[in-house]
Amino acid sequence: MPSSVRRTFVVAASLFTIGSASVGAQGTPLASWNDGPAKLAIMNFVRSTTDRSSPQYVAPDERIATFDNDGTLWVEHPIYTEAVFALDRVGELAPQHPEWKTTEPFKSVLARDEEAIAKFDEADWEKIVAATHSGMTVEAFNDIVADWLAKARDKRWNRHYTELVYQPMLELLSYLRDNGYKTYIVTGGGQDFVRAFANRVYGVPPEQVVGTAGRTKLTYAPGSKAELIKAPDILYVDDKSGKPEGIHLVIGRRPRAAFGNSGGDKEMLQWTQAGDGPRFMLLVHHDDAKREYDYAPDTKVGTFNQALMDEATKSGWTVVSMKNDWRRIFPFE
Amino acid sequence: MPSSVRRTFVVAASLFTIGSASVGAQGTPLASWNDGPAKLAIMNFVRSTTDRSSPQYVAPDERIATFDNDGTLWVEHPIYTEAVFALDRVGELAPQHPEWKTTEPFKSVLARDEEAIAKFDEADWEKIVAATHSGMTVEAFNDIVADWLAKARDKRWNRHYTELVYQPMLELLSYLRDNGYKTYIVTGGGQDFVRAFANRVYGVPPEQVVGTAGRTKLTYAPGSKAELIKAPDILYVDDKSGKPEGIHLVIGRRPRAAFGNSGGDKEMLQWTQAGDGPRFMLLVHHDDAKREYDYAPDTKVGTFNQALMDEATKSGWTVVSMKNDWRRIFPFE
Repeated sequence: MPSSVRRTFVVAASLFTIGSASVGAQGTPLASWNDGPAKLAIMNFVRSTTDRSSPQYVAPDERIATFDNDGTLWVEHPIYTEAVFALDRVGELAPQHPEWKTTEPFKSVLARDEEAIAKFDEADWEKIVAATHSGMTVEAFNDIVADWLAKARDKRWNRHYTELVYQPMLELLSYLRDNGYKTYIVTGGGQDFVRAFANRVYGVPPEQVVGTAGRTKLTYAPGSKAELIKAPDILYVDDKSGKPEGIHLVIGRRPRAAFGNSGGDKEMLQWTQAGDGPRFMLLVHHDDAKREYDYAPDTKVGTFNQALMDEATKSGWTVVSMKNDWRRIFPFE
Repeated sequence: MPSSVRRTFVVAASLFTIGSASVGAQGTPLASWNDGPAKLAIMNFVRSTTDRSSPQYVAPDERIATFDNDGTLWVEHPIYTEAVFALDRVGELAPQHPEWKTTEPFKSVLARDEEAIAKFDEADWEKIVAATHSGMTVEAFNDIVADWLAKARDKRWNRHYTELVYQPMLELLSYLRDNGYKTYIVTGGGQDFVRAFANRVYGVPPEQVVGTAGRTKLTYAPGSKAELIKAPDILYVDDKSGKPEGIHLVIGRRPRAAFGNSGGDKEMLQWTQAGDGPRFMLLVHHDDAKREYDYAPDTKVGTFNQALMDEATKSGWTVVSMKNDWRRIFPFE
């Protein structure tokens, strides 16, 4: 970006510091989006599907829009926020688990061995998630996550993780809702983890969060009080082909619009597109090393490799360049 | 019921033949309910949770009401409607399965051996459900169910099964919705089966139907068109303790009000009641042999035995006597 344009951008951005989704709901829609093909495509889709005289008109109850979370609505680099939560939680629970001092993967977590943690495989993470996401009521887990989010800060910005949400996407959520779309989160992350903040941060209520879900178990506390306890076993994984499957399970309708940023979202976009009538598919491309991250094509989280870019081109999906399409990245800017 | 009262009832009922949920939405709420403790308890709960000045006030987004389907919203005797569908479907699919002629439980179904069918155990039904509820796209299954419902008729009333819904419950659904409650179905029946008619018949959209769910599998049709195919394996069973578990999975909030009619709903009511603040629990008691059915306490479907009645009494749940509390049973009356 030439420096003159950059300067204009900085001045323009300063006009938009009142922050969060209210901008989208009250002011100009998509104010943090630069004019360009991505913004135009979004607005054309919304106008044509909500204008009663349009051949593309979609009835209000069929206006379902699904959003990936990590990397699409908030920062996922260099490590998923939920993983940071789980690692912190291992530390908090360690006094009750003396055996963790000598058992992997917990031993490496407690030793803060970042090299070893970076090499954890899926089985290691499954053990950590099972140990940190189960054994309490669903309400208690919600409180644990909310408490952690109120304290924990990321290292690069020294901000709460819930501040590291993308302002243009908050505006997009509001813009869609203002036009009668029901906005859902469809995340590979834990359903209950995301529910703990989605309503406050994104305006998405618990019943509109689809995610990887563990089993729960009904038990009876003293006084026969029925409680739902989070169990350590996974019910289903809401990633890749699990996303359309999770959407069918929880929503029971094919989305009209789907938003993602990685290979884990490909199947959701494909299934969305394969429906009849107007459909909209969008991928966020992390190409802004200065303001956020420029993913290497082989990054472990948020894969956006050449094959995905080719698929997007071939299929006519809208690709958002964070560098060029977003005037502003975060609400606090 | 004395015949004079009965006559009055018949005259009164004739005033309400415009049918379905519109009565509740437009006219007097709960018009098909006799004045009595059940109607009073419902109206007191709704008034106190929606009146801003009441200490029992519940915020609109927490107004979640969950309804069992079989025996609570429509007739389940002498055999679940979905079982009739599955048996019919075995007949339709038989030409493609010559082996069924000699394999149980299909052989008995094809021979219309009602005695043998009455003795089917859970494993038999699982085989029948797997064979009849899988192998097609989720959209195709929806159409198969809708087509069947448009043709099939029950034997006692010679009516479509979707006509055998309880008028007082349609009014209750409308009354709750008119007061800001989000109404969900939470059924031990198949989620996709119930979704095929719930919107049209109950005004409950697909995303508000929680039920026993099979897995689905994303596949690619010719031209790389992504499709979701119903798989034969069960993901979870939404009955007994599976009801609170299913509610947490799909809704993520504890209901404020729960409505059932059998032992399969007990845990849903217990979990609802164990929440903080105002909660409402109701059981429909089938005690009207003339107008519907009077269940024997040991009936195989819709168990309402003495233990459940004792639990209801002990816990202060509202028990609806179909005979005494309902002025009218069906919309067509």
